[in-house]
Amino acid sequence: MRVLVIGGDATGMSSASQLKRRLGEAVDITVLNDQRWTSYSACGIPYWVAGEVAGGPESLVARSPEKHRDNGLDVRVGVRATVINPHQKQVSAVEIADSATSMSFDYDHLIVATGAGPLQPPIPGIDLPGVLRTHTLDDGLIAIDALEQMPRTAVVVGAGFIGVEMAEACVQRGLETVVLDLAPEPMAVIDTDMGALITESMKRHGVTFKGQEPATEFIAGPDGRVSGVRTANGTYPADIVFLGLGVRPRTELAVAAGLPVGRSGGIQIDDHCRVQGYENIWAGGDCVENHHRVSGEPAYIPLGTHANKHGRVIGLNLSGEDAVFPGIVGTAITKFMSTEIARVGLTEQQAERLDRNVATATISTTTKAGYFSDSESMHVKIVVDRDDGRVLGGQIVGGVSAGKRIDSAATAVWNSMTASEVLDLDLSYAPPFSGVWDPFQIAARRVLGKLD
Amino acid sequence: MRVLVIGGDATGMSSASQLKRRLGEAVDITVLNDQRWTSYSACGIPYWVAGEVAGGPESLVARSPEKHRDNGLDVRVGVRATVINPHQKQVSAVEIADSATSMSFDYDHLIVATGAGPLQPPIPGIDLPGVLRTHTLDDGLIAIDALEQMPRTAVVVGAGFIGVEMAEACVQRGLETVVLDLAPEPMAVIDTDMGALITESMKRHGVTFKGQEPATEFIAGPDGRVSGVRTANGTYPADIVFLGLGVRPRTELAVAAGLPVGRSGGIQIDDHCRVQGYENIWAGGDCVENHHRVSGEPAYIPLGTHANKHGRVIGLNLSGEDAVFPGIVGTAITKFMSTEIARVGLTEQQAERLDRNVATATISTTTKAGYFSDSESMHVKIVVDRDDGRVLGGQIVGGVSAGKRIDSAATAVWNSMTASEVLDLDLSYAPPFSGVWDPFQIAARRVLGKLD
Repeated sequence: MRVLVIGGDATGMSSASQLKRRLGEAVDITVLNDQRWTSYSACGIPYWVAGEVAGGPESLVARSPEKHRDNGLDVRVGVRATVINPHQKQVSAVEIADSATSMSFDYDHLIVATGAGPLQPPIPGIDLPGVLRTHTLDDGLIAIDALEQMPRTAVVVGAGFIGVEMAEACVQRGLETVVLDLAPEPMAVIDTDMGALITESMKRHGVTFKGQEPATEFIAGPDGRVSGVRTANGTYPADIVFLGLGVRPRTELAVAAGLPVGRSGGIQIDDHCRVQGYENIWAGGDCVENHHRVSGEPAYIPLGTHANKHGRVIGLNLSGEDAVFPGIVGTAITKFMSTEIARVGLTEQQAERLDRNVATATISTTTKAGYFSDSESMHVKIVVDRDDGRVLGGQIVGGVSAGKRIDSAATAVWNSMTASEVLDLDLSYAPPFSGVWDPFQIAARRVLGKLD
Repeated sequence: MRVLVIGGDATGMSSASQLKRRLGEAVDITVLNDQRWTSYSACGIPYWVAGEVAGGPESLVARSPEKHRDNGLDVRVGVRATVINPHQKQVSAVEIADSATSMSFDYDHLIVATGAGPLQPPIPGIDLPGVLRTHTLDDGLIAIDALEQMPRTAVVVGAGFIGVEMAEACVQRGLETVVLDLAPEPMAVIDTDMGALITESMKRHGVTFKGQEPATEFIAGPDGRVSGVRTANGTYPADIVFLGLGVRPRTELAVAAGLPVGRSGGIQIDDHCRVQGYENIWAGGDCVENHHRVSGEPAYIPLGTHANKHGRVIGLNLSGEDAVFPGIVGTAITKFMSTEIARVGLTEQQAERLDRNVATATISTTTKAGYFSDSESMHVKIVVDRDDGRVLGGQIVGGVSAGKRIDSAATAVWNSMTASEVLDLDLSYAPPFSGVWDPFQIAARRVLGKLD
């Protein structure tokens, strides 16, 4: 069996590795990778750029192309797939360094793991030197190089996950920092009332957040490098700019080949990670859309966790198992300095857009029993469907150790528990970890009072 | 309606408060409390004794007798119930300060919330001055007083929750500390292989743990105070001794009145927290046994979380609602210094005693992505039923932020999830919080490999 993989990161390499481990000599696996790195933690780039990770880019690499080759995978780095031909079961490609060298690969099974790319709206000046991305390890190298020029001021454009993480990196690097976003508060994946807590945290760390104030132009200084960012309200000085405007699935190849793409922009796969309508084409990771178990609709939520699970499922299915990826519930976490931010399911705003009849409660408590001098504040929001009492989502913004508690909420949402059932859960308690009622249960209790 | 409550802590006061809030003038509630404090965090005592809580005992009091009285509850402190007469619906009591003053109280409904008391085996010398308990606030005051005499050496007898927490308190207080236990490793509520990690942590903090070496005698010094602890292997010097030998339900009153008590020693209640066979007697908290949802059997696991839930359920039921306490899954957490310890469900050893056919996996990972210089080690054990793949239990021993992750395992166990379903869960990931596969999912994946 010949298996061809396009993309050498989470889904691509984990499906390939899984399959090789299970089938050995019975399978020939070729991986086409348009980068020089494989299997790296893109999520780690902001922390590496911040200076929190010792070592060079290889610190973020879980497994290098050489290691993968040692395991029997034919990994081609610096090779870009150009055409997928599903009828001839063939993929054309070129060497990036020498685009005259075209190649073609026949396959029995194809795995499309082309990932995502940063959104890059046509803002004037967006290609100026000093306007930086942190999407790939090579981006990270450029950013670290730019930081070594001793910039003094930074503007972060966009306040989603990457924007918030890069704002932290700027603080760690001692930069005077302004964060701009179209939305009124950071992190549009949580509700505005919870996002306001992040704005407060930014203020405490000297970062200026400007909501509803998108960047309209990047201005060049006399040396041709970026020197400022213009908005409707004025111009912010910027020796360096980090873009965090979100990502889009890289689906050009798939679209050109006629593979189905959903309204979310991601490739449509079935619950076995097979591209819908294609027996021998599989896809996963940041280029696909997922089944959202709460909304019941497809959602584009690109995350390393899903990408690795997709890879495992594809590898198992290709090796003859019957493995299913049963969907997602929209769990995510990040932090800004010591403020942890986590969410699951639907926000109030999302639920209302889906015409759900919701009740919500937001509570403030502490990360430890209140009598500990180092207990920190912690805010929890719960979103419940009034019709059946089910928990649709939860959000946490709070101090150290607050964030990871979203996982019990995620497990509750995954199991379609009601707020009343959440209140019954046997969750852990000792004074250094929580009050006697878990914060999520306090929120459940509060919202139950509104359902009567 | 006249409601009489015996016991002024979690179950007693939360049921009384709940009921008063809902029924107001329609209910007369009297609470008999043999202590002078109400509604306090007994779990906080080790941390208060350690010096980690600012202020006196009132810091641990959530609501004082005066506050409860302001809310319309007739709280009698320093009053001990002596006889329950279910037929006459009457309770006799005495003032502790003056046992000649006998009283009697008629009730329509009785709430038995007598709590637990420390186990006190007949070890010679156990009543010597300097042999200390930390069960009540008054115990804590005595302990703090003893610590102010500048002891140099401490022996902690018993290495369960209280023993481990008091070992931490001794380290915080700068004492040279030995911990003795009958079991081979600390924390018999986790498996021995996991307990060994706590012994290592104790060693790192200069605490000597001696397993399978119970105390056989407490030796008095020339001043009549404790000066050492004898075991089969020798004598350990001890300016101070802390007992952590476990607790037993305080059921003398209940037993004398003929109320049903299970093999675990706790009062038997139904799923509405009614004492089995009694329409108008309710019980909850540390004096009852609970339905364990994993073993299917009654279990005596006294915890503040259950006690508060019992109180809520009793209060709701007495006010005309239909509230249920659906049982427990044995979730618990504590820590020794920076080593967090958590568990849920059945251990391997417990499951084997119940003749379950189990598979287990223990994995070691880190609390953050491995490339963070401050990521700490984290060990997770999973116990799975080979017959149906269900997760029976989980255990965590690890660095800061490891422990509270037991809650997602607890929610999974609560929902009877299989290891395969756990692997599908959408749990949160970002490099400062975890590797891309959640530790619990790594363990699930490992154990799945053993089920094939």
